[in-house]
Amino acid sequence: MALAFSSGPPDGGPRSAAKILDAARDVLSAQGYPALTIEAVAAAAGVGKSTIYRWWPNKEALIADALAEIFRAEEIPDLGDTHAELRHAVDMTIDNYTNEDIAASLPALAAGLLPHPELMSRFRETFLHRKRENIAAALRRGVQRGDLPHDLDTDLVQDVWAGTILYRRLMTDTPTDTALAEHLTRLVTENGSGFAPRASRTPT
Amino acid sequence: MALAFSSGPPDGGPRSAAKILDAARDVLSAQGYPALTIEAVAAAAGVGKSTIYRWWPNKEALIADALAEIFRAEEIPDLGDTHAELRHAVDMTIDNYTNEDIAASLPALAAGLLPHPELMSRFRETFLHRKRENIAAALRRGVQRGDLPHDLDTDLVQDVWAGTILYRRLMTDTPTDTALAEHLTRLVTENGSGFAPRASRTPT
Repeated sequence: MALAFSSGPPDGGPRSAAKILDAARDVLSAQGYPALTIEAVAAAAGVGKSTIYRWWPNKEALIADALAEIFRAEEIPDLGDTHAELRHAVDMTIDNYTNEDIAASLPALAAGLLPHPELMSRFRETFLHRKRENIAAALRRGVQRGDLPHDLDTDLVQDVWAGTILYRRLMTDTPTDTALAEHLTRLVTENGSGFAPRASRTPT
Repeated sequence: MALAFSSGPPDGGPRSAAKILDAARDVLSAQGYPALTIEAVAAAAGVGKSTIYRWWPNKEALIADALAEIFRAEEIPDLGDTHAELRHAVDMTIDNYTNEDIAASLPALAAGLLPHPELMSRFRETFLHRKRENIAAALRRGVQRGDLPHDLDTDLVQDVWAGTILYRRLMTDTPTDTALAEHLTRLVTENGSGFAPRASRTPT
């Protein structure tokens, strides 16, 4: 259990930490992020408020750790199939933003952390960096296979994928289903040159 | 002045409303959305708190109206040039999310409104519907000119544009500059088939 936002394991060690993080997710699901209080999490976990505050400086840090445990950022296996690997990456991203706990909290969390550069940097490390590295590795395999342009902008690909999914969940409330997953995957596998800065583009 | 979130003009009519909305933006810039209170806006506007509450039910509604005034959603002129019109659309979207007041507030606002379907629907109407309609009209002109596929998914195009820009501002803190604007524009003008559900795709 990585506790990126804690200053160390709380009283009672890992078992107590797990209980507190479980409780944090339960309260989050029931009440939503804005209404969530450390008091409510402490009550649900059956610990004192001071136990939580001893290890997490504030609500943002506690929730960030609680969500980090369920946020998908795994390595994408080398399947020898660029489309399949990219679809894995898109599905992973959709899972993250479709999980109600994560989807309802990440933007408010990000907004709450923005004024605190040090927390924000750990937030990006936790929620973005590892996922992006693992997806970039899959994209680079596609480049090596000749399925994607050599100068593919892997950051832009990921911003388009994650951005579109987050925007649909948050702003337009339209489905993030398998049709979207397939569409976003093919947008890259079949139009890779669109994601290359100076690729051999053919004008329309 | 459209006050989509107000139940009517406040005491003193349009001039008083303008003063309150100006004050709301000032306080928002200075303190950020989470810390903003109706009290602070009332003080900055030189009106009583009750004047504001008489017309706006809550902080979300007041801020939504204050931001709606500066949110770009204008009609895109017919320039006879699909690339230029789409670039106008992308620039408008970047402007909206680059404006500090809007960028810092929209996600928190959206998250705050999500539990209130009626407010959420007015929020979408105010911030999304008109902008999306005007951009869709420009995309349809591109289709009519034969520059874009006849079955272009105009919603997906807009979700990709706005999502990528919002995500860069909120999550990765990477530039939303003219290079990105041009890249997002060409992603559609030069790879339109990627945004068509069953278009004549060439496998890579």
